Amino acid sequence: MKNINCDKDRMKDKIVTFSKFGDTGRGGITRLALSEADLKARSEFTKRMKALGAEIITDDMGNMYATFKGAEDLPHIAMGSHCDSVVQGGNYDGILGVMTAMEAAETIVTENIPHRHPITVMIWTNEEGARFDPAMMSSGVITGKFDKEKMLASKDVEGVTFGEALDASGYKGDESNRINPKDYMALLELHIEQGPVLESKKMDIGVVEGVVGMVNYEFEFIGQAGHAGTVPQKMRKDALLAASEAIQYLHRELDKLDDKLVYTTGRINCSPNVHTIIPDDVKFTLDARHQDPKVIQQVVEIIRNIPSELAKCKVSYRELWSRKTISFNKELVDLVEKNANEYGYSNMRMYSGPGHDAQFAADMLPVTMIFVPSIGGNSHCEIEKTPVDNCLKGANVLLRTILDIDKK
Amino acid sequence: MKNINCDKDRMKDKIVTFSKFGDTGRGGITRLALSEADLKARSEFTKRMKALGAEIITDDMGNMYATFKGAEDLPHIAMGSHCDSVVQGGNYDGILGVMTAMEAAETIVTENIPHRHPITVMIWTNEEGARFDPAMMSSGVITGKFDKEKMLASKDVEGVTFGEALDASGYKGDESNRINPKDYMALLELHIEQGPVLESKKMDIGVVEGVVGMVNYEFEFIGQAGHAGTVPQKMRKDALLAASEAIQYLHRELDKLDDKLVYTTGRINCSPNVHTIIPDDVKFTLDARHQDPKVIQQVVEIIRNIPSELAKCKVSYRELWSRKTISFNKELVDLVEKNANEYGYSNMRMYSGPGHDAQFAADMLPVTMIFVPSIGGNSHCEIEKTPVDNCLKGANVLLRTILDIDKK
Repeated sequence: MKNINCDKDRMKDKIVTFSKFGDTGRGGITRLALSEADLKARSEFTKRMKALGAEIITDDMGNMYATFKGAEDLPHIAMGSHCDSVVQGGNYDGILGVMTAMEAAETIVTENIPHRHPITVMIWTNEEGARFDPAMMSSGVITGKFDKEKMLASKDVEGVTFGEALDASGYKGDESNRINPKDYMALLELHIEQGPVLESKKMDIGVVEGVVGMVNYEFEFIGQAGHAGTVPQKMRKDALLAASEAIQYLHRELDKLDDKLVYTTGRINCSPNVHTIIPDDVKFTLDARHQDPKVIQQVVEIIRNIPSELAKCKVSYRELWSRKTISFNKELVDLVEKNANEYGYSNMRMYSGPGHDAQFAADMLPVTMIFVPSIGGNSHCEIEKTPVDNCLKGANVLLRTILDIDKK
Repeated sequence: MKNINCDKDRMKDKIVTFSKFGDTGRGGITRLALSEADLKARSEFTKRMKALGAEIITDDMGNMYATFKGAEDLPHIAMGSHCDSVVQGGNYDGILGVMTAMEAAETIVTENIPHRHPITVMIWTNEEGARFDPAMMSSGVITGKFDKEKMLASKDVEGVTFGEALDASGYKGDESNRINPKDYMALLELHIEQGPVLESKKMDIGVVEGVVGMVNYEFEFIGQAGHAGTVPQKMRKDALLAASEAIQYLHRELDKLDDKLVYTTGRINCSPNVHTIIPDDVKFTLDARHQDPKVIQQVVEIIRNIPSELAKCKVSYRELWSRKTISFNKELVDLVEKNANEYGYSNMRMYSGPGHDAQFAADMLPVTMIFVPSIGGNSHCEIEKTPVDNCLKGANVLLRTILDIDKK
């Protein structure tokens, strides 16, 4: 088995080919779910998978399943990701998980590698949520987290519903075709890291143990508006001054917690936001993520301890949403690590900060993920890049792990 | 002279009447320059002034001059303000200066008070700049600060130019009718304070010594974007964290300066302003005002001393604009104070934070202003309010000062 390898030229060809579908002309793509660009990518996927002998079905959310029969009547082993992108996204987020799965399957077929289980290459519909809110829509519906009727009614900016776009796409299939714990024994998703850790630590492979839990809060500061030229400083209730004190407080306190905690005050809105008026209402968000629920609890304590008044302004906060830490299947995680080691690829265990379809699917069957480095930590942007050698290393670990699972 | 007083019922009637022109139905007005509401107010002004025997002319910017002849052939004494408002403004800002001037003139006429100089009640066109940018447009053109052709080409949101609106209004007159230093000996403008100082100090009258100088800067912080869930805290360059540190720095340092300094960080813009992305570009404005140029210079020193890097982000700043302190005519300022004292009205000397047409006019002839309190310091909003007793006190001081000037 040690000599089995995916093919670099084929890998490169896939990257070049799929980068055309939605090409922005500036190095990236805009390939919104069920858009013309998405349908072109799906068509290319179909063509290539069929040429290798796969049978293709879709489910009622438009998820695609290209299956290569196994020698025995056993549950499928699935691998894949999504092929939609954000607006002005890159050529790797999502689609690399599809392309490496295609390449792993292609290697199995062209090398005539025997396998007992059917092997299925998957495409999830609308992972980004960039055209139809929310993100991870289809895995959410399949695992009962989202209401299907509500999802079908989700509209894009032009008023087209997801349901309408799905009907028009030709990719709507039967609900009975959904990935499920009876017919599938495992799901693997390869993805770019979307962060700078692997690159900065010079690691080839991220052995993903799970997806970190998170909380998302919104803080609000109510002050009093007034003319910039008339209200004496001591009489002011400046909501932006209060917000800046709160940002300082949060950084000071949160920096005392475990250094794997990541937190972000990413959005701030100031009202009335006029240079000659004292701000009377400022809101900002806090996103905090850590794999250990105890650390998240410490974050919540710090939030609760924020003074109720800052700079004479009223301080309030509310939770916008949260998610618990998801742990991937321990046996699959170990297999990924073993295979990375056997190939001699440098690797490290890590948690995913961003959410992925795999995290929802982990509720119903054994799942894990494989990360490859993102240059500069860039993602969701046109300069997103993973060198082809790293893509190939990821594909090899994926291939070997699939074949290990097949032996069980 | 001590028994001369303006009339409270007439003052109240003027306030009620003018509040109808542009009435929003929520206690305030929207009376944009040369709008239908503005033309109705001008028409009411014309009717009332003509009924008292005034002769009315307009100049090439639509400024109105209602003149009551004097006993001798001498330069005019002018008083007035503007009658346009911001969107959803109040019933006092600007128009109170017109109404008190009307009431002072009405008192002179009905009481048959002899006067040697012609007395002119003025309306300035487009002081707010709310429909046609910039503010103080007409006084700016007359005193050579703004280019007239550019001002005529200034467009409202519907694409109508100031020149077109002026032509259509019927209020366009000759350039030779402009207020000027040869034909006018003084100009007085009464205005609401637009701040909380007079009310909080229980003062009836603000004796305005001038308009404070100001600087307006924009700060920018350049960091690096990244996914909220992936970039370790120590590797981040968070532009919003940098901006909050800068706001703290500015408050800490500026609070050490003279306590009459007012400064405001009123506008903040964060990019990309998404809760799951580390901000990479944040800008905010700093508006600082003080009557003493030395204090403004200290503000500029503090700005220049801001660290060039905060939270690992690049810090830069630029001056958006500035203005020097304008001092009003000392003799007129003293007269206002003397008359407030003679009436037994509590009063204090102060500088204006906001700009006014009087400040531009001060370049060409002796000018001063009289302030009356604004309840809660409110202005440019529908709840703007000055009790009628305060309006009357302001009208009395205005009247007495005009008659004092007439004796010179």
